[in-house]
Amino acid sequence: MFQKVLIANRGEIAARVIRACRELGITTVAIYSEADRDALHVRMADEAYCVGPALDTKSYLNIPVIIETAVKARADAIHPGYGFLSENPHFAAVCRTWGLDFIGPDPEAIERMGSKSLARQMMIQAGVPVVPGTLGTIEAVAKWDPLKEPDAEELGYPVLVKAVAGGGGRGIRIARTPAELRETLEAARREAARFFGSGEVYLEKYLEEPRHIEVQVLADRHGGMVHLFERECSIQRRRQKIIEEAPSPALGPEQREAICQAALRAARAVNYSSTGTVEFLLDKDGNFYFCEMNTRIQVEHPITELITGIDLVKEQIRVAAGEPLRWTQEEIQRRGWAIECRITAEDPDNRLMPSPGVITTWEVPGGPGVRVDGGVYTGYEVPPFYDSLLAKLAVWGEDREEAVRRALRALDEFRVEGIKTIIPLHKTILAHEDFRTGRIHTQFLEDVILGSRL
Amino acid sequence: MFQKVLIANRGEIAARVIRACRELGITTVAIYSEADRDALHVRMADEAYCVGPALDTKSYLNIPVIIETAVKARADAIHPGYGFLSENPHFAAVCRTWGLDFIGPDPEAIERMGSKSLARQMMIQAGVPVVPGTLGTIEAVAKWDPLKEPDAEELGYPVLVKAVAGGGGRGIRIARTPAELRETLEAARREAARFFGSGEVYLEKYLEEPRHIEVQVLADRHGGMVHLFERECSIQRRRQKIIEEAPSPALGPEQREAICQAALRAARAVNYSSTGTVEFLLDKDGNFYFCEMNTRIQVEHPITELITGIDLVKEQIRVAAGEPLRWTQEEIQRRGWAIECRITAEDPDNRLMPSPGVITTWEVPGGPGVRVDGGVYTGYEVPPFYDSLLAKLAVWGEDREEAVRRALRALDEFRVEGIKTIIPLHKTILAHEDFRTGRIHTQFLEDVILGSRL
Repeated sequence: MFQKVLIANRGEIAARVIRACRELGITTVAIYSEADRDALHVRMADEAYCVGPALDTKSYLNIPVIIETAVKARADAIHPGYGFLSENPHFAAVCRTWGLDFIGPDPEAIERMGSKSLARQMMIQAGVPVVPGTLGTIEAVAKWDPLKEPDAEELGYPVLVKAVAGGGGRGIRIARTPAELRETLEAARREAARFFGSGEVYLEKYLEEPRHIEVQVLADRHGGMVHLFERECSIQRRRQKIIEEAPSPALGPEQREAICQAALRAARAVNYSSTGTVEFLLDKDGNFYFCEMNTRIQVEHPITELITGIDLVKEQIRVAAGEPLRWTQEEIQRRGWAIECRITAEDPDNRLMPSPGVITTWEVPGGPGVRVDGGVYTGYEVPPFYDSLLAKLAVWGEDREEAVRRALRALDEFRVEGIKTIIPLHKTILAHEDFRTGRIHTQFLEDVILGSRL
Repeated sequence: MFQKVLIANRGEIAARVIRACRELGITTVAIYSEADRDALHVRMADEAYCVGPALDTKSYLNIPVIIETAVKARADAIHPGYGFLSENPHFAAVCRTWGLDFIGPDPEAIERMGSKSLARQMMIQAGVPVVPGTLGTIEAVAKWDPLKEPDAEELGYPVLVKAVAGGGGRGIRIARTPAELRETLEAARREAARFFGSGEVYLEKYLEEPRHIEVQVLADRHGGMVHLFERECSIQRRRQKIIEEAPSPALGPEQREAICQAALRAARAVNYSSTGTVEFLLDKDGNFYFCEMNTRIQVEHPITELITGIDLVKEQIRVAAGEPLRWTQEEIQRRGWAIECRITAEDPDNRLMPSPGVITTWEVPGGPGVRVDGGVYTGYEVPPFYDSLLAKLAVWGEDREEAVRRALRALDEFRVEGIKTIIPLHKTILAHEDFRTGRIHTQFLEDVILGSRL
C-alpha cells in the first residue's frame, strides 16, 4: 500500500480523498492555490504546499509544479480527484515517468475514452448500443454539407453537435434545421478548439426527454472487474447534474442487468482498471445508448457507496496499489435507496448566479441516514475562481419514499448564512409531484421547475 | 398516524425524535426549561413551550405542566425520549388518562421491568438465565444477617447490593466481606430511598470482568415481536456507557442466536410492545445472565440502525400508533459493523469533570460511514444542569477494523472549542491494542485506560 499520497485537487473531493487515505493509514499531501490558503482540504491534510496563484491553469492544472511538489514531498502516488487533471492522459503518463502512481486508469484508457468519437466506434465494436450519429468526426465544415451527407438525414433533426474532446456535459450544442446545423458547426468547432484544445466535433441524434443513467464499475489491474449498479442523474441544468439517485426508478430487474452488462463490456473494451462510470441515455421506449465513459471518481459516487456499503475511493486507491478486487459480482449486494443533492453557492432567486463570499454560519444536518461531504466551514470565504460546489448531501432510506422524505428533512436542517445556496431549489424539486413519482428526464429541471421559476 | 407529537425531553434525543417525526409528516412540539431557551431542539421543533425553571424536577420531570402543555398544543401523543419520564409508569398512565398516546410500552410493562427484583423473578419463570442472587428483596437490614442467610454464602464474595428501583447503572454498590456487606446495605438502602423513592435492595453475585451485551427488541401492539441483534457496551465508566458497538466481537453465531432468543422470552414475559432493550452480562466462560430491561429507546440505538437499516425511532412511533411490524424476523438482516462514541462535555485532563460553557467552535466530521446525532451548535452555551452528552458519533464500516479506523478518522475531524470534551479519551481507547483485538470488559476503561491516566 502507498505510504504517502498527494491529492491534486481542492474542495470536497480533496477532503473525501484525505478521509479515505487516513482510514488506510496513508499520509496525505494537499496542494493549494494562493486563493485556497484557508481551504478545508489544506487544514485536513498532513502536509500542504502552495502550487501557484488562484488561476487554475497556474495552480491546479500546473503539471510541472504539481509533479515537483509530489517528488519533493516524497509522495508515492497522486490522486487527481475529478475535474482538473483527472482525465488528462498526459498527466497520468508524466506521473509514471517520475515514478509516481496515478490513482486512476492507464493513460491509454483515458485517452481512448477521452476521444468521444473514438469511444463511440469502440463501443459499436464491443456491442454496446450508442446514440445514432456520425461514425467519425467532421473534419472540415467548409467541405461538409449536412444536406448531402447521409448522416444528418438519417438521424433526423434536431441533432447534437458534440466536441470530440468534451465531456461532463460541456461542449454540446443543438441544431434544429440544416441551416442551423451549418451555423452551429462553425461555432462549435471554434469553441471546442478554444476550450478542449481540439476543434473536432461529431453529430448525435437528439433524444427527446431522455433519462441519464450511469453505471459504476470498479476494476483491478489483474483483470478483475465488477459493476456496482446504476445511478440516475436526470436532474440537470445546462447538462450539469444537480440531484442524483441510486438505484434508478426507471429500471426493472432485466433492464438493470442489461445496462450493467453493457457497462462492463464498455469498460473491458479499453482494458479498464480503477473506478469508472459508463454513462447512458434511456429513451422513452426503454432503449439505452452509451454516451461516454468518465475515467475518474465521480461527484455522485457517495450514493453508490450508500446502497452497496463499499468505499469507492478506498477501493480505487487499493486497486491502484495493485491489490486485487475483494468481491465477486455476486457478493456485491445493494440495499435501499440513496439520493444526493449538490449544495452549490448559487442564488436560486437570481438566475442561479454564483454567490461567493464569507460563510458566516455553516450548520449541517445529522441523524439517521444522512451523510455530508463538505469542503467548507463557518468563517470560510468561498473564492470566486472555482466550481461553486460547497458540499454534497447524500441520504439513505429503506426505499425511495423514505429517501426523499429524509432528504427534505435534512435540507430543512441546513443553516447557511452569508452566501446564497441552491438549497431552496432542491426542496422545490424533491417536493414536486413528478419527482415523487419518478417521472423525470434531463429536461425536467429546466422545463418543469425552472421554466416556471426563472 | 399521529398528527402532532410532544417531545418530553431535551438535547440530542429530542432532536432525534423531531427528525423521525418530520420524516413521518408529524408536527412536533418541544418543551424546554428556562435554561434551554436557546437549545437546538427548541429551534428544530415546529412549536416550543417553556415548562419551568432549570431544575429538572420543576421542568422536564414536571408531569402536570407537561400534560397541560400537550393538551393545550393539541398533541395526540408524547415521546419521552430516554431518562427523565421515559420509564415512569405513572407518567405513562397519566398520558392515557388525558387521551394522549405514550410512545413507549404499556405502564404495566414499565412497572414490572422497573422493579429489578420482580423482573428477576419473572425472568427465572420465563427460563431466562439471571445473575445468581437473592430471589426477593431484603426487607429489613436490622433483621437480616448475611452470615446466616444462605444467599450471600452461596453467592460468594464480592456481592453487589442493587436498588430495586435503580437502573441504568445507578444504585449499585459492591461488598467484599460480610462486614462490608452489612455496612453497605445500610448505606445502599438510605441512598436508594433518597434517589429512587424506594429503599428496597437485593443482592447479586459480582461477576469478574464481565462483558455488557444487550439485545434490541421491537414489538407491536398485536403480538408481533422481533429482535434486531445485539450491541456490546462494555466500555463504561462508573457504569455509564461511553463506547458501544454492534455486533459484539465476543459472540459466535450460536451464542448470538441464544442470547437474542432469551431477550425475546424476556420481552414476551411482560407482554412488551415498543422498542426495548434486554441487558445481559457475559462472563468469562461464555455464560450470559439477564440484568435488566430498559423499556425505552436507548442512547446507543443508532448503531443498531446502522447495521440493520431500520429507523428505530420511526418504528417506535409507528407501533405506538397501532401499526403492525413491517418485518418478519427472517427479513431483518444485519450488515457490517457500527461503533458509537458518546461525545460528552467532560475534561479528560481533569478527572473527567463536567465542562459546561459556550461552544465557540463546533465542527462535526463527515464523509462515508459517519453519522452525528448532535444537540448543540456553534455559539450554544452548554448549561451545567443536565447530562453532559453533547452529541453521538456513530460510524459504520464493512467490518470491525474499518469501523474502528473510521471512528478514529472521524474523531480527528471533530473541532470543538470553548469547552472540553471526552474526544481525546475516545482516541486513546480506540487506539488501544486490547480494544483493537476486542478483548474488553466492563472494567476495561477504569482499570486499563483510566488506571494509567487519571
